[in-house]
Amino acid sequence: MESIAQLKQLLANQVEWLSHYGADSDGGVTRLLYTPAWLKAQQALAERMREAGLDTYYDDAGNLYGRLEGTEHPEEVVLTGSHIDTVRSGGKYDGAAGILAGLACLRRLYAQFGRPKRTLEIVSLCEEEGSRFPITFWGSGNMTGRWSMSRIPDVADAEGVSLGQAMADAGFGPGTHRPCRRYDLVSFIELHIEQGMVLERLELPIGIVQGIVGQVRLTFEVCGETNHAGTTRMAWRKDAVAGTAEMTLALEREARSAGDPYVATVGKMVVAPNVSNVIAGNVLFTVDLRHPDALSLEAFARRIVERFYSIAAERSLQLSHRQWMHADPVPMNEELVHRLEQTCKSLQVSYHEIHSGAGHDAQLLSAVCPSAMLFVPSRAGISHSPDEYTDAQDLAVATRVLADTLYQLAYVGGQRQA
Amino acid sequence: MESIAQLKQLLANQVEWLSHYGADSDGGVTRLLYTPAWLKAQQALAERMREAGLDTYYDDAGNLYGRLEGTEHPEEVVLTGSHIDTVRSGGKYDGAAGILAGLACLRRLYAQFGRPKRTLEIVSLCEEEGSRFPITFWGSGNMTGRWSMSRIPDVADAEGVSLGQAMADAGFGPGTHRPCRRYDLVSFIELHIEQGMVLERLELPIGIVQGIVGQVRLTFEVCGETNHAGTTRMAWRKDAVAGTAEMTLALEREARSAGDPYVATVGKMVVAPNVSNVIAGNVLFTVDLRHPDALSLEAFARRIVERFYSIAAERSLQLSHRQWMHADPVPMNEELVHRLEQTCKSLQVSYHEIHSGAGHDAQLLSAVCPSAMLFVPSRAGISHSPDEYTDAQDLAVATRVLADTLYQLAYVGGQRQA
Repeated sequence: MESIAQLKQLLANQVEWLSHYGADSDGGVTRLLYTPAWLKAQQALAERMREAGLDTYYDDAGNLYGRLEGTEHPEEVVLTGSHIDTVRSGGKYDGAAGILAGLACLRRLYAQFGRPKRTLEIVSLCEEEGSRFPITFWGSGNMTGRWSMSRIPDVADAEGVSLGQAMADAGFGPGTHRPCRRYDLVSFIELHIEQGMVLERLELPIGIVQGIVGQVRLTFEVCGETNHAGTTRMAWRKDAVAGTAEMTLALEREARSAGDPYVATVGKMVVAPNVSNVIAGNVLFTVDLRHPDALSLEAFARRIVERFYSIAAERSLQLSHRQWMHADPVPMNEELVHRLEQTCKSLQVSYHEIHSGAGHDAQLLSAVCPSAMLFVPSRAGISHSPDEYTDAQDLAVATRVLADTLYQLAYVGGQRQA
Repeated sequence: MESIAQLKQLLANQVEWLSHYGADSDGGVTRLLYTPAWLKAQQALAERMREAGLDTYYDDAGNLYGRLEGTEHPEEVVLTGSHIDTVRSGGKYDGAAGILAGLACLRRLYAQFGRPKRTLEIVSLCEEEGSRFPITFWGSGNMTGRWSMSRIPDVADAEGVSLGQAMADAGFGPGTHRPCRRYDLVSFIELHIEQGMVLERLELPIGIVQGIVGQVRLTFEVCGETNHAGTTRMAWRKDAVAGTAEMTLALEREARSAGDPYVATVGKMVVAPNVSNVIAGNVLFTVDLRHPDALSLEAFARRIVERFYSIAAERSLQLSHRQWMHADPVPMNEELVHRLEQTCKSLQVSYHEIHSGAGHDAQLLSAVCPSAMLFVPSRAGISHSPDEYTDAQDLAVATRVLADTLYQLAYVGGQRQA
């Protein structure tokens, strides 16, 4: 393989190149599912894949594959890649980094070693973010059975264009290309930006993801008494804002004292009547809780809900709540994680065992094959922003780790393995 | 004068009668400035005033007066009354109680004692609430020089109708009636509902207002860092919502420990981006502070602002603030307050020395003549609501106190007095 310096240059160039598809005037990137920018990006990637010697094909959902057919076990597919879509005004790295790193790996592996024993594929997943339509993981979901071409969700974008129509307009949909569902995958490794500050603060180039956190999201409604801000003594108030403030601080304290990797967030708060001289009678607010262990997460959620009800009772406030999202934690495959760690060690690359606080395609793929993830550092933890940035040196190091791991999985040995 | 039982029945009937003008289907009352309901209410009141033997007239702003010309000092006017307008979906008592009590007083004083030595007038002020146009005290403001017919504010209602146009449509405006500005007032006494819970909790029928609180209103902007709710460790967050929660609780604690009559309210809060899975980078919130003593209020405001900046600094949040309202406390006239207290004592009516936490027309009138206020209890402290209620017995007792005081001011003695 080329040197890290060469890889660094290559990847830096490729990141810039791909970011032109859907480039915003402010330096950001907007590549929403099935839009012209998205389609051109997939077509340009397909061209690059073919230049690298890969066979390319789409599936019905618009996932783009580049394939190196295996010589001994063509029916066993080792897969890498990530998603091509972005949020509105997103960055150049989220999703793209994993596709470009994977493509660099397959190009060089093929150039150096020819065809693998197992089939090696790279995928540019059509959608992960849920930025155009109110669904997420449309790409990996169709591969794994969470979504299906036979039941296209009846959703529309902000302009009223349905998902089915947008898909057809872009040249995709049932029967247009290969079926989406994959039954031949033996491993999936996704390289992705961390979107957090852990690696940067630790000054480490690589995070080996141990698991993707579980999430619980709840909405609480606090009902007090709307009253006159001038004539109502402090002791007689049933102030929904003050009650919510106490709950918010209790949540923060609880998460802090539970320690990493617990995170808890009140991100949304709607006050009524929301007038400066009226004591608020009503507040709706959300709580987002995450932890990689299902039992810890559940216990944490229970503790929070109990604490909130006790605060409400002390303040004579009415409280109600609704849990509207629950996603179990998804551990990464132990053997693959171990293999990635061994690769880092053999390459003398320092790494950090990390948990992903965000959702990723790998959590869907992990339902159908052993899956793992490599994280690269995000400068200042920023993502979903034009300021998203990952140092090309870090990206090159991680790409080398990915290439070596893919080599072991697809070129070495012959037994079915994780 | 008639017995309290008779007065009680009379006032209960009159409250119901007046509430038909602008009656909402839910039992509330909506009488916005210069609307047909408002005009009919003024016209109906004028009719009742004339039935009671009063001379009636309007001023250019639409304030309605009923007058008993003084026999000895017609140029010295003792005034009572309150405002006829309501908030949207308001109650039957806010403003109306003071007009109806005053009218009952003048009717009976005239019937029993004939014309007074000083002129005695009742006023049905055209506007106090600021519910149709974004200005308040249009009625008493025109009497006292805060507002002027020569500079009609360029404001419009929700439908785009200007104040000047609405006034003209209702038959008012510069030169249509008598000039608004009054230079002949020697005292003003306003009876009004408390709009708080103090009298009800103390089980007292009357509050003698010592002063109207000063108000400071501020808007704070907390700037942190918008970040991913899943990937940002608790320790690394700059969470504008959590910071605001800590400030809100600190404010509540400070006001509670300062004790009555301090009140402090966060009534409005706007979070950005206000999304459940994003740590909020920005919160705008308001603080409403009130206290009857100017120096205490100022010190309190200074303490709060300092505390907030220290909380922001501890959390590495940026804070800015703007004080957009400052109204000095308005003490009521000592001699009039003393006279009201003496009247209560002589009638063996228990009373409470109270501060008004809300603004009232009396605070404008106090700039041009000795002014005072009588409060009657509000059930559960509720006002600006169809549920607004004051027991007719309490209203009758207060009306008796008002009548006796007006008698002393207008019928007894001859020197100019407070």
